[in-house]
Amino acid sequence: MPQPNRAVIFSKVPDGAPIPGTDLTVEQREIDLDQQLPPDSVLTKNLYASLDPYMRGRMRDPSIKSYSPPYTVGEPITAYSIGQVIRSENPEYKKGDIIYTILKIEEYSVVTKEQLAWRQTAKIDVVPGLSLSHYVGILGMTGLTAYSSLYEIGQPKNGETIFISSAAGAVGDDDKLRFITEELGFDAGFNYKKEKPSDALARLAPNGIDIYYENVGGEHLEAALDALNPFGRIIACGMVSQYNLKPEEKFGVKNIMNVVGKRIRMQGFIVGDENMGPKYAKERNERVSAWLLDGSIKTKEHIATGIENGPEALVSMLRGGNHGKAILKIADPE
Amino acid sequence: MPQPNRAVIFSKVPDGAPIPGTDLTVEQREIDLDQQLPPDSVLTKNLYASLDPYMRGRMRDPSIKSYSPPYTVGEPITAYSIGQVIRSENPEYKKGDIIYTILKIEEYSVVTKEQLAWRQTAKIDVVPGLSLSHYVGILGMTGLTAYSSLYEIGQPKNGETIFISSAAGAVGDDDKLRFITEELGFDAGFNYKKEKPSDALARLAPNGIDIYYENVGGEHLEAALDALNPFGRIIACGMVSQYNLKPEEKFGVKNIMNVVGKRIRMQGFIVGDENMGPKYAKERNERVSAWLLDGSIKTKEHIATGIENGPEALVSMLRGGNHGKAILKIADPE
Repeated sequence: MPQPNRAVIFSKVPDGAPIPGTDLTVEQREIDLDQQLPPDSVLTKNLYASLDPYMRGRMRDPSIKSYSPPYTVGEPITAYSIGQVIRSENPEYKKGDIIYTILKIEEYSVVTKEQLAWRQTAKIDVVPGLSLSHYVGILGMTGLTAYSSLYEIGQPKNGETIFISSAAGAVGDDDKLRFITEELGFDAGFNYKKEKPSDALARLAPNGIDIYYENVGGEHLEAALDALNPFGRIIACGMVSQYNLKPEEKFGVKNIMNVVGKRIRMQGFIVGDENMGPKYAKERNERVSAWLLDGSIKTKEHIATGIENGPEALVSMLRGGNHGKAILKIADPE
Repeated sequence: MPQPNRAVIFSKVPDGAPIPGTDLTVEQREIDLDQQLPPDSVLTKNLYASLDPYMRGRMRDPSIKSYSPPYTVGEPITAYSIGQVIRSENPEYKKGDIIYTILKIEEYSVVTKEQLAWRQTAKIDVVPGLSLSHYVGILGMTGLTAYSSLYEIGQPKNGETIFISSAAGAVGDDDKLRFITEELGFDAGFNYKKEKPSDALARLAPNGIDIYYENVGGEHLEAALDALNPFGRIIACGMVSQYNLKPEEKFGVKNIMNVVGKRIRMQGFIVGDENMGPKYAKERNERVSAWLLDGSIKTKEHIATGIENGPEALVSMLRGGNHGKAILKIADPE
């Protein structure tokens, strides 16, 4: 018998920053939880969805090519998520299992054989003492993105200095600055709304930086190119300051020349690339779980609760309203 | 007894493009060819000097840091050169030997023990059938720069497409275009004075490019970033379009974002880096000499004769007046 299945819908391609209620809406659709499932599929009750900056890139006109496919207007958006199996036609999954994969942001999903066979899909054995929400955060795709790229591209060495732009998420404020220095243990940070990146780097890293973890682009990238030491590395993860701009509005970086003289290596990546997530997943799971348990690494999550708050939570994250990893909680496990 | 020793002098830091006779002059200085030489040094008669774009970067105010040291105002400029030993206090060199090293652009030089011990200094055994001038060109530092970076950073694979900006030296004209396609065997080329790089790449490489060999910067770099295929490589050798510009005049590259989505690797280098010239020198010498002899690779040189023509030849190369590797011939061997 059909029952309500609320979902976060991609209603319209945004012009600039997306607007909740206009570009992203919550609609009540229906699902029959007793339906005959396709062979080898499972039915999940969805628990947590990860809200991430790359999702803005998927909210585009489908004629524009990019590394991730565009969302379909009129359909639910998808996200890295955790769901709990409530019915299974697949011998590898049983009722109650926790699955990590990309799901539509909706209350219940049918997860096909193909989706279950996808390399990034995983059955989660929750480590005692760790929160379920961590598995869409530091132990999910975003944590793996940071971990794999830091080691594969950044290749940090003892004594080196790293500059991470947007270290506490988009939009600087003094509370975020206090968070990364006092709570997370960064040596220093700056609020880009109060100080130019070039001034801050000169003040905080007078001997230069060795690695730039690039999340912002524009003025931050230009400052980093000037501050990088010889043989510095730029881990090109994203350039959030540039996403909402038209081509002609984008920031022109004038000092790329530094790449030549300083022998800088700048490299982009996607976590799904063979030499990234797949190469580092097992190592990350083991080491980061242990670090969380012994307290040597900390994580902070910003959890919005209720699918009806999905559009606002996603847009708020894009505006930098989150303090910690942005997560949407849809339901508790059964 | 002192005798004339003409030299190309760095007279003044240029404002914009250097001017022969003003910023670079030829002066007649003196040398005593019978002087007592320092221990383990040699005295050379200088034969050929390589004229290269990086030399513009050395003609700067010494307060500006860069990868190569600034030239000293009032002193001869230096260049990768070939000299012939006319007197030797060093047991490893005898009269008549040909040396490749960095020398002042002057008729005679005392080459110290330290300079002889420098890793890039080499005694040249001229391969029969090859011209002496090749050893400051394709078999010198510039050839090694291209060879080592192409293999180390570019990592070309069968069937890939490479775009080389300024493939025939600075400043496009149709004669250079004809040269690279008809004489050198490139599949295609374009004259950037007649066609925008982005239009030319769309026309000539409709399936995109895999490697961009970057010598120009600015608009060329922007076009290449758009044209590069996923996992493309940018060999950042130089950005000659940007050298003479003030910081505020430099071209702002607006599409660096491509590095992220397309997983581009952009890497700068200097031929002296451990993983570049030193790693590839022996392999290059052997393979390129063989290729030259069997005709499978071609080289073209643009040789100016006479040290009195040194300033004009150097400035002409910076303006793109050369068709082929720019070389200054100072004298014939004895």
